[in-house]
Amino acid sequence: MTPDEFRTHGHALIDWITDYLEGIERYPVGSQVQPGEIRAMLPEHPPATAESFDAVMADMDRVIMPGITHWQHPEFFAYFPGNTGYAAILGDLAASGLGVQGMSWVTSPACTEVETLMMDWMQELLGLPEKFRSTSATGGGVIQGSASEATLASVLAARWRVTGGRINTIGDTTNLVAYATAQAHSSIEKGLRVAGIGTSQIRVVPHDGSFAMRVDELERMVAEDRARGLQPFWVCSSRGTTSSMAFDPTADIAHVARANGMWLHVDAAMSGIGALAPEMRWINDGVELADSYCTNPHKWMGVNFDCDLFYTSDRAALLGALSILPEYLRSQAAEAGAVIDYRDWQIPLGRRFRSLKLWFTIRTGGVTDAIDMMRRHVGLTQELASWVAADPRFEVIAPHPLNLLCVRLKEGDLETDAMIEKANASGRALFTRTVLDGAVACRVSIGGRTTERRHVEQAWALLQELA
Amino acid sequence: MTPDEFRTHGHALIDWITDYLEGIERYPVGSQVQPGEIRAMLPEHPPATAESFDAVMADMDRVIMPGITHWQHPEFFAYFPGNTGYAAILGDLAASGLGVQGMSWVTSPACTEVETLMMDWMQELLGLPEKFRSTSATGGGVIQGSASEATLASVLAARWRVTGGRINTIGDTTNLVAYATAQAHSSIEKGLRVAGIGTSQIRVVPHDGSFAMRVDELERMVAEDRARGLQPFWVCSSRGTTSSMAFDPTADIAHVARANGMWLHVDAAMSGIGALAPEMRWINDGVELADSYCTNPHKWMGVNFDCDLFYTSDRAALLGALSILPEYLRSQAAEAGAVIDYRDWQIPLGRRFRSLKLWFTIRTGGVTDAIDMMRRHVGLTQELASWVAADPRFEVIAPHPLNLLCVRLKEGDLETDAMIEKANASGRALFTRTVLDGAVACRVSIGGRTTERRHVEQAWALLQELA
Repeated sequence: MTPDEFRTHGHALIDWITDYLEGIERYPVGSQVQPGEIRAMLPEHPPATAESFDAVMADMDRVIMPGITHWQHPEFFAYFPGNTGYAAILGDLAASGLGVQGMSWVTSPACTEVETLMMDWMQELLGLPEKFRSTSATGGGVIQGSASEATLASVLAARWRVTGGRINTIGDTTNLVAYATAQAHSSIEKGLRVAGIGTSQIRVVPHDGSFAMRVDELERMVAEDRARGLQPFWVCSSRGTTSSMAFDPTADIAHVARANGMWLHVDAAMSGIGALAPEMRWINDGVELADSYCTNPHKWMGVNFDCDLFYTSDRAALLGALSILPEYLRSQAAEAGAVIDYRDWQIPLGRRFRSLKLWFTIRTGGVTDAIDMMRRHVGLTQELASWVAADPRFEVIAPHPLNLLCVRLKEGDLETDAMIEKANASGRALFTRTVLDGAVACRVSIGGRTTERRHVEQAWALLQELA
Repeated sequence: MTPDEFRTHGHALIDWITDYLEGIERYPVGSQVQPGEIRAMLPEHPPATAESFDAVMADMDRVIMPGITHWQHPEFFAYFPGNTGYAAILGDLAASGLGVQGMSWVTSPACTEVETLMMDWMQELLGLPEKFRSTSATGGGVIQGSASEATLASVLAARWRVTGGRINTIGDTTNLVAYATAQAHSSIEKGLRVAGIGTSQIRVVPHDGSFAMRVDELERMVAEDRARGLQPFWVCSSRGTTSSMAFDPTADIAHVARANGMWLHVDAAMSGIGALAPEMRWINDGVELADSYCTNPHKWMGVNFDCDLFYTSDRAALLGALSILPEYLRSQAAEAGAVIDYRDWQIPLGRRFRSLKLWFTIRTGGVTDAIDMMRRHVGLTQELASWVAADPRFEVIAPHPLNLLCVRLKEGDLETDAMIEKANASGRALFTRTVLDGAVACRVSIGGRTTERRHVEQAWALLQELA
């Protein structure tokens, strides 16, 4: 592709994306294809000769679009918000165009320094503790690809700290025990498993009627494990669980963690961004007592994937767990301690200039936009809850302080499942099911950038129609 | 940002990227800033009011560019190739614009099916064994973010297989032993460490004069470990090491691995893509005996980061190690076994539509372009080697079958280091140092998309001038 062709095709693609996002309501929300259908529309073998860019774009419409589940659709109420804002798309494009690696400061100083600054800006904007700031004595932040990676990084730092660094030489994890509720995200168990903490070393702490951790049970389990000679080392406080958006009592958990030398990780991946709005600061209550924390601009802030903010107050433990220095990665600046090498803050070596999408978004008014959007989502969720309460066939089965409502047909699980399946098959909206203490529920996650009152009204009408 | 503003700014940014890449030779290759200089040019606190997009772009030129080390510069001879091709930038932009999650088939079927097809296309294009194809009985491939993640995935699959899956419940790794040479990439030790394999469980297998693994030593070490009651479980065969581009004898290693029930991972991150050219197929010799393999289109193929191809012949082990199924991620299609859920093939849950950049690149002629480019790089490297041989002050200290030359001043380490430092400070080219069996060397990695004969001539003139 020549430079001039890139200009022409690039302009066309920008227009194609705009038309896609502005006309997205013409599509069914969830893809309606059957397994194998997309692949069958494409050649089984690579082309022998070059095709035109127009041919590729024609296939974007013909082949790709039927296989897309539209996360940007205003009737997308499934999983979690996954907003892609216009400014963030451009920030990401700039990163692709520059094509630099930010693994070390020296491999592109701007990539590191803008990222550090964005982490500090977000610390301020979210009202997070000063101890997470890069200018603090012992803490700092980094953009991870996902909350899964943030969780794993946190587990690895905790594992390093509790073994006094011995884990790096003697990889013995058999004595370590971790704690979370059954409501914690699946990436918690996965991250622990990766780090050599099997399910026999993971305690599922009971939750209360609001699906929040019971700290009395945590305390009891930790004491029992210690009595057995085991080493409790890591506990997760979820602030906004995926299933029902439950909030564990972080400050109380912190008390137990501190008394027992455990690392406290606060997982606010889905909801923590809400703290941009002053009245939602409570989401992160207790985070000042945490060893690490994460939240995702790529969920509720209009910054496209991948962009997870991971903070720790103990960067020495993180670096102890993750730094490795071969000859070909040495640099004077790093050895003098004058700079950050973010490769030592994450699992992979390579890294994109991911902070640009945050920088573009914040500077062009993205924070105000996100606050307005989140307030709208929370308001609509509460309105929907009142509509549900007025229909005797339905019930709400979990607290709903923010933008997720778990609704269910009183008739039963099978009926609720059937309703969800029919709604999703209609293409008019998309929901995810979950199971809360044995009861099937339809999760209504109101988080679209363009989701307005009428979309929620339509979704509710659809559920009523199918009930 | 309104849709119309996005169109306008998007077109401008496409032009900015084109102008940047086409005019890149005006910049010093390595950033010349001091630590803290970039951050000091930006406000310490986030803006209180929205700024214009033009203000952001002005800062891209004023603030960001001085802090960029230009990986796309034709005089960039450092680290490894990190090519960003025009078609790949557009593929990445399309992915950002669609803003879908590909964690499960059902979350966007096209995202999964195009990725599977691209992995199969690349298997064919690279001449990799059929057992890595998605249509094979037991194997398949996935795009990972980086070779570091591919290595870790491979270690986790091996750990699962050797323990018969018990690792997931009893996280005991203390008996496991892994093998690699000192020339293996740092991500090998890091991945092992993450998985609970400490340095006391990693054997550094001696290498020969060409920096390739000595299989007699591997065999001896494995036997010793077994005699001690330990469990050899994973060995890495590097095909193109980072330091000097050395090639471990994969087939011989496979013989030892097979006889001892070990997982064989072939790491061809930097060089494996060369196999697109028939005469470079030898790079992957022996891969038909491997349990897993990775190579990076984001290094030598013009596909921008992140895009690592990871193949395994034992997907059951990979899935055993990495799959977790909470209620909110269940789907009928997955439970029926009709589809792939790539979240079970990787560490993170979330994933971008990364295969689009590969699809755009391959369809618009990127394979032919890459082959032409790689042949040019290999030819230039051999030419440079002949120039170096003709200058009595220099010596080449490692085999150079492809596009990396390790040169050194006969005078000594300090002199070689001084030459590299001065060359990099000049901004006229950028090199990385390494140490090979105690001797400092200047790595000349010839891998730029636009690197021509004159650039190599200039780089050589610079080194001669500073010798």
